[in-house]
Amino acid sequence: MYELGVVYRNIQRADRAVADQLAALGSATVHEAMGRVGLLKPDMRPIYPGCQVSGTAVTVLLHPGDNWMMHVAAEQIRAGDVVVAAITAECTDGYFGDLLATSFQARGARALIIDAGVRDVKELQRMGFPVWSKAISSKGCIKATLGSVNIPVVCAGALVHPGDVIVADDDGVVCVPAARAAATLDAALKREALEGEKRAKLASGVLGLDMYKMREPLAAAGLRYID
Amino acid sequence: MYELGVVYRNIQRADRAVADQLAALGSATVHEAMGRVGLLKPDMRPIYPGCQVSGTAVTVLLHPGDNWMMHVAAEQIRAGDVVVAAITAECTDGYFGDLLATSFQARGARALIIDAGVRDVKELQRMGFPVWSKAISSKGCIKATLGSVNIPVVCAGALVHPGDVIVADDDGVVCVPAARAAATLDAALKREALEGEKRAKLASGVLGLDMYKMREPLAAAGLRYID
Amino acid sequence: MYELGVVYRNIQRADRAVADQLAALGSATVHEAMGRVGLLKPDMRPIYPGCQVSGTAVTVLLHPGDNWMMHVAAEQIRAGDVVVAAITAECTDGYFGDLLATSFQARGARALIIDAGVRDVKELQRMGFPVWSKAISSKGCIKATLGSVNIPVVCAGALVHPGDVIVADDDGVVCVPAARAAATLDAALKREALEGEKRAKLASGVLGLDMYKMREPLAAAGLRYID
Amino acid sequence: MYELGVVYRNIQRADRAVADQLAALGSATVHEAMGRVGLLKPDMRPIYPGCQVSGTAVTVLLHPGDNWMMHVAAEQIRAGDVVVAAITAECTDGYFGDLLATSFQARGARALIIDAGVRDVKELQRMGFPVWSKAISSKGCIKATLGSVNIPVVCAGALVHPGDVIVADDDGVVCVPAARAAATLDAALKREALEGEKRAKLASGVLGLDMYKMREPLAAAGLRYID
Amino acid sequence: MYELGVVYRNIQRADRAVADQLAALGSATVHEAMGRVGLLKPDMRPIYPGCQVSGTAVTVLLHPGDNWMMHVAAEQIRAGDVVVAAITAECTDGYFGDLLATSFQARGARALIIDAGVRDVKELQRMGFPVWSKAISSKGCIKATLGSVNIPVVCAGALVHPGDVIVADDDGVVCVPAARAAATLDAALKREALEGEKRAKLASGVLGLDMYKMREPLAAAGLRYID
Amino acid sequence: MYELGVVYRNIQRADRAVADQLAALGSATVHEAMGRVGLLKPDMRPIYPGCQVSGTAVTVLLHPGDNWMMHVAAEQIRAGDVVVAAITAECTDGYFGDLLATSFQARGARALIIDAGVRDVKELQRMGFPVWSKAISSKGCIKATLGSVNIPVVCAGALVHPGDVIVADDDGVVCVPAARAAATLDAALKREALEGEKRAKLASGVLGLDMYKMREPLAAAGLRYID
Repeated sequence: MYELGVVYRNIQRADRAVADQLAALGSATVHEAMGRVGLLKPDMRPIYPGCQVSGTAVTVLLHPGDNWMMHVAAEQIRAGDVVVAAITAECTDGYFGDLLATSFQARGARALIIDAGVRDVKELQRMGFPVWSKAISSKGCIKATLGSVNIPVVCAGALVHPGDVIVADDDGVVCVPAARAAATLDAALKREALEGEKRAKLASGVLGLDMYKMREPLAAAGLRYID
Repeated sequence: MYELGVVYRNIQRADRAVADQLAALGSATVHEAMGRVGLLKPDMRPIYPGCQVSGTAVTVLLHPGDNWMMHVAAEQIRAGDVVVAAITAECTDGYFGDLLATSFQARGARALIIDAGVRDVKELQRMGFPVWSKAISSKGCIKATLGSVNIPVVCAGALVHPGDVIVADDDGVVCVPAARAAATLDAALKREALEGEKRAKLASGVLGLDMYKMREPLAAAGLRYID
Repeated sequence: MYELGVVYRNIQRADRAVADQLAALGSATVHEAMGRVGLLKPDMRPIYPGCQVSGTAVTVLLHPGDNWMMHVAAEQIRAGDVVVAAITAECTDGYFGDLLATSFQARGARALIIDAGVRDVKELQRMGFPVWSKAISSKGCIKATLGSVNIPVVCAGALVHPGDVIVADDDGVVCVPAARAAATLDAALKREALEGEKRAKLASGVLGLDMYKMREPLAAAGLRYID
Repeated sequence: MYELGVVYRNIQRADRAVADQLAALGSATVHEAMGRVGLLKPDMRPIYPGCQVSGTAVTVLLHPGDNWMMHVAAEQIRAGDVVVAAITAECTDGYFGDLLATSFQARGARALIIDAGVRDVKELQRMGFPVWSKAISSKGCIKATLGSVNIPVVCAGALVHPGDVIVADDDGVVCVPAARAAATLDAALKREALEGEKRAKLASGVLGLDMYKMREPLAAAGLRYID
Repeated sequence: MYELGVVYRNIQRADRAVADQLAALGSATVHEAMGRVGLLKPDMRPIYPGCQVSGTAVTVLLHPGDNWMMHVAAEQIRAGDVVVAAITAECTDGYFGDLLATSFQARGARALIIDAGVRDVKELQRMGFPVWSKAISSKGCIKATLGSVNIPVVCAGALVHPGDVIVADDDGVVCVPAARAAATLDAALKREALEGEKRAKLASGVLGLDMYKMREPLAAAGLRYID
Repeated sequence: MYELGVVYRNIQRADRAVADQLAALGSATVHEAMGRVGLLKPDMRPIYPGCQVSGTAVTVLLHPGDNWMMHVAAEQIRAGDVVVAAITAECTDGYFGDLLATSFQARGARALIIDAGVRDVKELQRMGFPVWSKAISSKGCIKATLGSVNIPVVCAGALVHPGDVIVADDDGVVCVPAARAAATLDAALKREALEGEKRAKLASGVLGLDMYKMREPLAAAGLRYID
C-alpha cells in the first residue's frame, strides 16, 4: 500500500500551539480524550525514563536493516517535529545513533518514534534526545534501498499521517490526527480539570464506588456480596 | 485515529474482474508485483491449508473481546467480498465461529481476515469458509461497545481501505489498493509468464548464478572462492 | 503454592457419563456454557487436527526438563482419564513420546494436555493418542527431581483439580470443575439445541442484526449509518 | 473454573507480623524457602526499581479491557494488603493509573500485582505506589462486565488465594499460602543467616567447589579436567 | 565472528552411508544418542507434515531481507546435501520459494533448514521439497549484500559446520558433527533396538515404574503416596 | 554438538591490553568495525544501566534449571575475564545471584553474560557486578547435571570461543574472536576518530545527505521529491 521512492516536501502540520500543549497532558489522558483510539502498541518504550514530548510528525518508511532514508528525512525536519519511522517488515536493528541524533536535533526535531531498534542510548540520554522504540540494538544498517518520507505510515500498529501530532511519555505513544488536534486538546484539558477534584476525594478515602455512583449498576448487573 | 460508531454503506469496490483474477497469482507474486509492500504480518495464518482467495475488502473495527460489530458488518457484505477485521488492541479471543460464518457465507463473503482469534475451525473447514487469523481460541466475545464498519483500518500492520483487494493463500495475506489493482494484476501476470521458462531452466540444472548473470556483480562486491 | 513429592491415589472423579458427553459439545460451546471461564491459554494446540475428547483429569506437576513424574502419573490413570501436566517454569522440552503414550493408552488414558513440549508426533498420530501442547520438541528429559501427582495444578493459566472434566478439540482446551460438570452439560446442550435453528435462519440470509434484535441497542449506543 | 459476580468480604488474612517480615527477605530467598514453588512468571516486572514489599493478598478477577472490578476491590482493601489482579484472557491494557492508586493507597494498600498493563507510571513512582505488571500502556478500560473479588485466582501462572502473602521486589513476585507463611518465614530466616558467612568465605576467594564440597560428586558424575 | 564474502568449495562431508541411515532413526532418538545436545530451537517447524530426512550440511549465511547468497549456495550443493541457512539478525522474510527449490532439487539437495521464512509452500509440498523454517511469509528479498557459503554458522541456536549431518522430521532438527556421525548412528541403533521390547511391555500394561525400576529411587527421593 | 562433562583449564586468552581497550569504544562501534557480525541477540539486556565493560571470555554450558557448572566455572576465572553462560535449551531461571557474584568478583571476573535469568539484581548493582541477561527471575536452580567449561558455546545466537573478547554496554553485547581482536581495535579506533569531526558538522546543521554525498546515489536510485 506504500508509495516508494518519494519525498513529500510540503506537508500540512497541525497547529503548533495545539501540538505543543498536548505534551503536558500525557499520552493516557490524550488517548482517553480521543475515545481510546490512536495508540501505538505498548512495546514502544522510551529508551530512558522521564521524557514527555509532543510535536508534529515527519514520517519515514524504511526497509529492514536499511537506514538510508533517515538522512533523507533529516532534511524535511522543522523545529517542533517528531520523526516517526516505520519499517516494511519486523526488524530490531539499530537504525539510529548519536550521529543521526545530532543531525535531527540540529534541525529542530524533538524525538524519534521508531518501530525497530536504536543504539548509542547512553549518549542519546546525555544529549537529551528521547526515543521511543521496541528494541535497543548495536546492530547497524546498510544504505541500499529507497523508502519514502512524509507518506502515511503504519507505525507499531497505528496509522500516522505527516503533520499529525505525536504525544509520547513513559506510558506510551499516541497519534492525534491534525484535524482533531484542537478538539482533542479541549477534551483532554476538560478531563484533566476534573481529575484534581477526584484525586482529592479519593485521597480522603471516598470510594470510586460512591464517587462514580457504581453501586447501583453493579447490583443491577448481579454483583453479590458474601460475608 | 479511528472514527468510532459509524458504518459506511457505499464504498468504492475495486473492479470485480481484476479482484477475482488476483487469487490465482498468489500472495507472493502479487506482493512482488506491488514492489514488496502491502503484506500483512506473517503471523496471519490460514486455519486450514490449501485455500487461495481474493476479493474486495469490507472492513470492520472491533474492540478487544467484543464482536458486536461483526453482525453490523455482515449486512454490508456483497458477493465477492472478503471481511477484514482489525482490533483496537492485541487480542486472541475467538471473534468468529460457524454461526457468523454461515451468515457471512449466505451474504456472499469469500473469507475472513482477522487480527485476533477464531473458533469452530473444524466446522469452518467443513463449510469451506477460509479464515486467516493470528490465533485459534474457544474464548467467546461480549457485545457491548461500538466500533465501525468500512473505515480504513490497520490490520496486522497493514493499512486496508474498504474496497481494496485482498489476496490470501498459504503464504500469507496481501492488500492491493483499489486504485492499483489493475496495474498490479498486469505486473503480476508478467512476472508469472516469465516464471515458467525460468523454472524449466533451473530444473535442467542451469544455475541462478548464470541465468540471472550474478557472477560479475558478486565478484565486483568482493566474493572470494576458496578451494 | 504446590505440595511437592506427593501422589494422591484416591481422587474424586466427575461423573463418568457427564464427562463423556461433554466431548461432542466442543470446547467453545462448553466454555460459553461455563460463563466464559475455564479456558486454557490458546497456545495449547493439538499436535494433529480433528480430535475431540473429554475425560477426567489426572494431574501431574513436573520440573523443567524433567519427566520423572510422568511414570508415577501413569500408575494413577484409569480408563477415561485425561492427563494434565503442568511445569513449575516455562519449558518447551519434549516430555512425552510414543513409549509413554503406549503406557498411558494401555492404562486407559484418552489424551495428554501439557504446558510444555512433546515428541514422536507422527507416531502419536498413528497410535491415535491426541496431545494438546504448546510446543513440539525432540529434546528429551532427565529423571532427577520429584513433583507431584493429583494435586491442583495451574496448566496454561487455568486451575485444574484432579477429577475435573477436560474438554479438548481443535479450538482449544477447557476445564470444567467436577462439581459443575452436570450443570455445564445441561447448559451446553441447551445452547446447542438453539444453534441448529439459528444456523438455518442465517443460512437463509436472515441477519444476526434482526435475529438477535440488535438494531435498537446499536442505535441506542449511537451507531450512525452514512450513505 | 472461576465464580463470577461475587465479592467475598470476610477473608482469612495471613498473620500480619509474619506477612510484614517477609519483605526484607526478598522474593528469591522466600522462593527457595518454599521449595522453589509459588513464583509468578518472570514477565511480571516492577514499574520502577528498588521496591521491596510484602502484604496480604486481596484478589480481583477482571475481563480483558475492563477495569470495573478495581473499584469494587478498593472497598475490600485493609491496611497491609497487596492487590493481586488476574485477567480472564491475555491483555496488556492499562487497568490502573494514578486515580485508582490514590484510592488504593488511601485504603492502605501497599502495592498492585497485575497480569496486564498499568499507566501513569511516572506519577505512581512519585506517589511511591509500586506496581508489578507485564506491561505499561496508555490504553484505558471500559466498565461493563462483572468479575469477582477475593476468589482464588491464577495470576501470571500462579494460584493466589485471598489472604496469602505476596512478596515482591526487583527479582519478581512470590505467593506464600497463608497456612505456610510462618514456616516459610522460619526457613527463609535460616537461609539468610547462613548467607552472611558464605558470602565472607566466597569474598575471601574460597571456591563454592570447596565450600559446598562439590568436587567429589562432580568427579563421580564424570567431570574431566583437560589441561 | 563470521567471515564474510567467502565460499568454501571443498568441504569434508560426513560419510554418506552413515548420513543416509540417520533419517530413519528420527531427530528425537538421534538427539538422545548424542547426549541431548545438537538440537535446533523448537520454533523450527516443517512447512508440511510427514517428512523425515537426513543429509550433509551445506551452510549459507545471509543478511536480513537479502537472499543473494542462496544462488551462490546452489552451486555448492551435491546430491544428498541439506542446505542450512543462517541469518545475521532476526528475520521472517520469505527467502526461498519454488524457483530456488527447483534449482536446489536439480542439484541434489534434499531439504532446506532456514532460521527465517519461506514462501510458495503449497508448491514446495507438491514438489516434495521439505523445508524446516521458523516462519512462512510472502515477503520477498533483495540481492545486495555478500554473506558466505560453507563457513560454520549458528542456525536457530545450534552451531553447524559444513559437512555435518542434519536429521529432520516432524519433531525438529538435529545437527550431528561429522566426526561423531558414525558413533551417533551406533548409539541410536542400539537405542532403537531396545525400544521395540519396551513398547511391547508397556502396551501389555507393565508400568515404566517397574520396567525402569524407578520405585526405589523415587522412595529414596522422598515420594509419598496418600490414600 | 557440545562436548559434555569437560573443563578446559588452559585456554588462549586474547591479548589483555587489546581486550581492555575495546570497552571504551562500545559495542556499536566494535560491531561495525567487525563488519556487522558477532552480535548477541538484542534481548540480552544489562540488569542496570550505565555499564561498559570488555574482557576475555570464560565459557560455561549449563542445562535448563541447573547451575551446578557455575561453581566449576568460578575456578577457571582469571582477572579480566567475562563469564559467558549458554544453556542447552530456552530457560529464564535465575542461575546467578549475589553469592556467586561475590565469588566471581573475588576471582577477578568483570561481568556475566547469560542467555537465561539472574536474581538479586539490586544487590548485584550495589556490588558493582554487571550482568547482561535475557531475564530476571527469582527462580533458583538445582545442581544435578554436568555441562562443560571453556568449550565453544552458542550464547544468544552468537558463537563464543573461550578467550574471545566480549564487549558489552547499554547497546548490547559483541563477541570479538581472539585472533581478530587487534585488527578490530584498530578499525574501531579509526571509526571513532572520524566521528568527532562528523558530529561537529552535523551539529552545525550540515546534512548527512551532503556530508556523505548521498544526493547523487539517491537520485540514481530514483528518489523523487514532490512539492
